[in-house]
Amino acid sequence: MSNERYQRGKEKLREILPDGPEILEDGPGQVAPDLVRHAYEFAYSDVYCRPGLDPNIRQVATIAALTALGNAPSQLGNHIKAGLNTGLDREEIIEVIMQMAVYAGFPAALNAAQIAKEVFQELDDVAEAKP
Amino acid sequence: MSNERYQRGKEKLREILPDGPEILEDGPGQVAPDLVRHAYEFAYSDVYCRPGLDPNIRQVATIAALTALGNAPSQLGNHIKAGLNTGLDREEIIEVIMQMAVYAGFPAALNAAQIAKEVFQELDDVAEAKP
Amino acid sequence: MSNERYQRGKEKLREILPDGPEILEDGPGQVAPDLVRHAYEFAYSDVYCRPGLDPNIRQVATIAALTALGNAPSQLGNHIKAGLNTGLDREEIIEVIMQMAVYAGFPAALNAAQIAKEVFQELDDVAEAKP
Amino acid sequence: MSNERYQRGKEKLREILPDGPEILEDGPGQVAPDLVRHAYEFAYSDVYCRPGLDPNIRQVATIAALTALGNAPSQLGNHIKAGLNTGLDREEIIEVIMQMAVYAGFPAALNAAQIAKEVFQELDDVAEAKP
Amino acid sequence: MSNERYQRGKEKLREILPDGPEILEDGPGQVAPDLVRHAYEFAYSDVYCRPGLDPNIRQVATIAALTALGNAPSQLGNHIKAGLNTGLDREEIIEVIMQMAVYAGFPAALNAAQIAKEVFQELDDVAEAKP
Amino acid sequence: MSNERYQRGKEKLREILPDGPEILEDGPGQVAPDLVRHAYEFAYSDVYCRPGLDPNIRQVATIAALTALGNAPSQLGNHIKAGLNTGLDREEIIEVIMQMAVYAGFPAALNAAQIAKEVFQELDDVAEAKP
Repeated sequence: MSNERYQRGKEKLREILPDGPEILEDGPGQVAPDLVRHAYEFAYSDVYCRPGLDPNIRQVATIAALTALGNAPSQLGNHIKAGLNTGLDREEIIEVIMQMAVYAGFPAALNAAQIAKEVFQELDDVAEAKP
Repeated sequence: MSNERYQRGKEKLREILPDGPEILEDGPGQVAPDLVRHAYEFAYSDVYCRPGLDPNIRQVATIAALTALGNAPSQLGNHIKAGLNTGLDREEIIEVIMQMAVYAGFPAALNAAQIAKEVFQELDDVAEAKP
Repeated sequence: MSNERYQRGKEKLREILPDGPEILEDGPGQVAPDLVRHAYEFAYSDVYCRPGLDPNIRQVATIAALTALGNAPSQLGNHIKAGLNTGLDREEIIEVIMQMAVYAGFPAALNAAQIAKEVFQELDDVAEAKP
Repeated sequence: MSNERYQRGKEKLREILPDGPEILEDGPGQVAPDLVRHAYEFAYSDVYCRPGLDPNIRQVATIAALTALGNAPSQLGNHIKAGLNTGLDREEIIEVIMQMAVYAGFPAALNAAQIAKEVFQELDDVAEAKP
Repeated sequence: MSNERYQRGKEKLREILPDGPEILEDGPGQVAPDLVRHAYEFAYSDVYCRPGLDPNIRQVATIAALTALGNAPSQLGNHIKAGLNTGLDREEIIEVIMQMAVYAGFPAALNAAQIAKEVFQELDDVAEAKP
Repeated sequence: MSNERYQRGKEKLREILPDGPEILEDGPGQVAPDLVRHAYEFAYSDVYCRPGLDPNIRQVATIAALTALGNAPSQLGNHIKAGLNTGLDREEIIEVIMQMAVYAGFPAALNAAQIAKEVFQELDDVAEAKP
């Protein structure tokens, strides 16, 4: 019954983060496949596919929240990539992270900037490796 | 020396939340005037006046973070008002809050929606009271 | 399409907390009806209806988490009531709360005990008012 | 067997906050007396009676932590009173709270300053009421 | 004087997590032996030895809280092992973690599932290595 | 215009943590130089240079907050070093960390003690390597 939501969510995730489904399925999905299914069906289908917000804006909200919460560095890195994929530029992502110093303190913002640095470096390395 | 930053920050706050300076100065500012000064100089001047992000986007980031953190309900209410003032519509604010159920859980999102409900009601009451 | 999940979730919530649907629908549901819908469909249908855990155990997990997080006092109160409805006794709920002093500190545990006190008192008052 | 620790902890709490035992025992202690007992025996006897830190410094640490965590406003108010009783002055308490804007963000610091304002006002009102 | 509580707590910890005392004593205990002593005397003796809750239920509460808080991944891994030792099965632990997506968001739940995956793998490797 | 605050803040940081500026500038400063600038100008100049609190006391407050929040282990390590530099001794730092078990739970305190252990070890190794 939930096939359609599952497929739509998985595609949505792949659209904003091409290796997202593999990260989920090869990691926590090995022991908690239904949690990954709920991530597709609820998070990426029911929420992310809603028309009410521009995909860019959704990534701003997610990057802001994960920077402030500070409990999920790898997911923050993935959503920084996703934000670049939906059309944010690096400067905008850094602006969002900087603003979080006001709401969650400097350590949270500095740690998120460090994660952004590593993501940008990784992307530059990949770009450079291409002929 | 910091006069210019102070003035610019206070005006920025008044621009996005007309009674913001009074809320700060009559509340915590009574015992911590320098903390309020830093809020003007650092948060509202150094950060909010930066050109790199649309004011709307800044409110999205702040509403997302305060919903997720859940530690500042009155500031969340004020930034919901500020978001409406910078040009977000009610539906967009609710979308941001809903998305936070994915990142910070349902209680955080439901509590933020309840705060939004009270802000919207207050604004409707004020609008209705006008001739 | 989601009708069945919606109905099942709403019934599940009513089963463990008879006035739960009214609390959600008359509160945050007034501005965020789809967030309440997701609470029914995802939280109370997809998760709470799963057979893998005793309903009592689910309430233990929720009471522990809400005590530790400390960001949702009214939801904690409701899940204390829900725990009594699924079959936990008052002493067990207090034990769970006490244990949280170890993991989240004394203020979190003491505040949760205060909420439990108010819930127990409310239930005693209702019981006493009956002929 | 734990009588001595219990008595010593309760006296320690009364020393730094004269109505502390009543707040604990009449509040959460009504449903969780052993949690209050652990607060006396562990927190106020085993930890607070240790000689390694000046009582003032202990209150600085507690006020900083409760400001940053933001999950226990009434305990923060009580420890602001306790800090005044152990010898901190109001300006020092405000300095600690202000510094937390750096580590936990402005909303956390502003909310703590608001609590300090209310505590100071309450103490001034009591002082004024005396002949 | 506290010898009995110390011994009882250390044995309790060893009962639910055989290498628990070494983890504590060789790690943080090297600089904070009294903190480890309090962990034995307060956490593992005063709290965990109380008769009011089944050991399984205590692990459910702890796993739920550590998943939701997200600040202590190594302790979460240890309590997943402890839960298996007190009698929870893997599926029940995953159910508790999944439920936390509702209360603390998907990143917290996914990170806990990843930790569970690593614990299960480690246990399988040990089991396989035995003749 | 902000040159003076920038210089004063950078010097203040170097005073309490000699390699602090390099940590900031070579890390997050590579992508977010203005965030590092704000750390100097706001955190280390506007806040840390205020005369109202002894430098030791400021480190107690910071160590307490970072232990309790648990979201910034590397910054906590740096502030443990900074505390030793401003004049706290190791025992006092451990006392502050132990006290946090009361306010933020044992995992937070144990993880901070583990970080302190590693910092102390690193400092001993450096001291031993000197002729």
